[in-house]
Amino acid sequence: MSERSNRQFRLAARPVGLPKATDWELTTQPVPQPGDGEVLVQVLYISLDPAMRGWMNDARSYIEPVKLGEVMRAGTVGKVIESKNPRFAAGDFVIGGQGVQLYASSDGRDLRKVDPAIAPLPTFLGGLGMTGLTAYFGLFEVGQAKEGETVVVSGAAGAVGLVVGQIAKIRGCRTVGIAGGPAKCAYLKELGFDAAIDYKAGDVGKALREHCPKGIDVYFDNVGGDILDAALTRLAPHARVVICGAISQYNATAPVRGPSNYLSLLVNRARMEGFVVFDYRDKYDAAIRELAGWRAAGKLHLKEDIVEGLDAFPDALLKLFRGENTGKLMLKVA
Amino acid sequence: MSERSNRQFRLAARPVGLPKATDWELTTQPVPQPGDGEVLVQVLYISLDPAMRGWMNDARSYIEPVKLGEVMRAGTVGKVIESKNPRFAAGDFVIGGQGVQLYASSDGRDLRKVDPAIAPLPTFLGGLGMTGLTAYFGLFEVGQAKEGETVVVSGAAGAVGLVVGQIAKIRGCRTVGIAGGPAKCAYLKELGFDAAIDYKAGDVGKALREHCPKGIDVYFDNVGGDILDAALTRLAPHARVVICGAISQYNATAPVRGPSNYLSLLVNRARMEGFVVFDYRDKYDAAIRELAGWRAAGKLHLKEDIVEGLDAFPDALLKLFRGENTGKLMLKVA
Repeated sequence: MSERSNRQFRLAARPVGLPKATDWELTTQPVPQPGDGEVLVQVLYISLDPAMRGWMNDARSYIEPVKLGEVMRAGTVGKVIESKNPRFAAGDFVIGGQGVQLYASSDGRDLRKVDPAIAPLPTFLGGLGMTGLTAYFGLFEVGQAKEGETVVVSGAAGAVGLVVGQIAKIRGCRTVGIAGGPAKCAYLKELGFDAAIDYKAGDVGKALREHCPKGIDVYFDNVGGDILDAALTRLAPHARVVICGAISQYNATAPVRGPSNYLSLLVNRARMEGFVVFDYRDKYDAAIRELAGWRAAGKLHLKEDIVEGLDAFPDALLKLFRGENTGKLMLKVA
Repeated sequence: MSERSNRQFRLAARPVGLPKATDWELTTQPVPQPGDGEVLVQVLYISLDPAMRGWMNDARSYIEPVKLGEVMRAGTVGKVIESKNPRFAAGDFVIGGQGVQLYASSDGRDLRKVDPAIAPLPTFLGGLGMTGLTAYFGLFEVGQAKEGETVVVSGAAGAVGLVVGQIAKIRGCRTVGIAGGPAKCAYLKELGFDAAIDYKAGDVGKALREHCPKGIDVYFDNVGGDILDAALTRLAPHARVVICGAISQYNATAPVRGPSNYLSLLVNRARMEGFVVFDYRDKYDAAIRELAGWRAAGKLHLKEDIVEGLDAFPDALLKLFRGENTGKLMLKVA
């Protein structure tokens, strides 16, 4: 154990626009010694999520900002390598929030055991983890998507978007994905989306008119900006707009662009609603069971985009904002 | 009857920005003769509402646009002066949508009898009419305002705003109104609003921070623009933003300004929802009974701003957009 060392990415500066190399500090420390009641976790995979950009800002939000000098917050899957906590044994696999580092001690309260016989470990950060849960609760609880309705999702080839489109389809919705580029759109069609709109290739509003002849019942928004505005013009009466994220705006240095067409909410008696997946924690287990069942039945395909090595962190994170990932982006660090 | 003539304001052109005199045509016609099953209504009061500006645009909305050459649509209270319909007798007072004119025939389907013993006739266009119903359903059904919550209403000295603030207070909410100028604000305080913010006098965001220490649970928006944005920054968790109108934007010749702070919906797990009062027609009677009861008990004060004469119509309508009215604006035409 004494030969190992812990390496960590810490937030060195609050980014303006896209995070730069100098916004991070890579530190090396001894591997922590777990105290009484604690476990030592070796981190195996680190989740990279658009929300991380928000946590880097010093602003009131649904969660405290990461402090300067702190290890960057991130969801992780890891292995217990030493345990002084009766709930865990060495060899257990756990998901938690160990952050962008190689080792962490924990009192276990933020850890949940996962069974690698059910699915490969990366899946527990993706479709059977917070990603899948975000899609599930956003679509069914906030969006109230029902059989026969038309569901449109932006960022459709991203981690959450891929799950939203597939589970909407499983529940009998007409499903339209919006993504950037022909390769991503072809992949959406392969997964069974009824239509895929390449926002880089033309007028999104026109394409929505074509592919949503009865209007949009649920619009699941991951991107904000022009695409949100285009979707608002095509709402069906009593539509639900689910605000999951706004990746087009997270690195903006100008003020956020509000949706000009928000009065469509009035005309269509529609609603726009934000949510935070953590609020649904009491229902996580049931949702994971349903998602795992769909996966086991071959109805839900979960795709990960895995980058190797802790050192790749600063650049890998930018893939999200450049739209370079398809599926759940993560780092493999062990 | 042959000596009378009907006079009517018709839509002559689709306005760009504020409606101009040349957007209207004043026509004179014989008073219509009611056919079998019809009644002849003499219009007494004509409701002037911000929504009328939207009906003048050639755009998809919750209701058909007024056609060029058509009599301008408006809510009215009138008197049946001749009846060939067994449901009505000469002398009955009725509310309906007879438009900006002195007489109209009707098959009665759009008419509801009102009893002038319950309240003065103008009240049936205001607090005991569509105005009161809009406030009632917007606040309680869409906004789900509950005892102990903080309710903020913009356009608070307007027809709907005055009712929203008072009925929120009756139901035990902390009530904050936003209006333009010290006279309107003093009136709000007189009516029992806990606080009144003069948006012309300073920073609305700062004033909201002061007067809503626990955040805003329900924001009832009549105005849009900067004030909507300021309110979004002060939402409490699980807040409801009720989109009733956006008077600041109705005459804009530039694209509508979307709310830049809409991501506050995500952070606060809040929702923004539009509505159209017509959807609640099955519940009108019960709501009117409750509103009339509050009025009779002296808890709900209804204020009308009455302009005399049909000819005053084009200019009187502009009072709404100049923020010159306090309470329900209407024309008295007989």
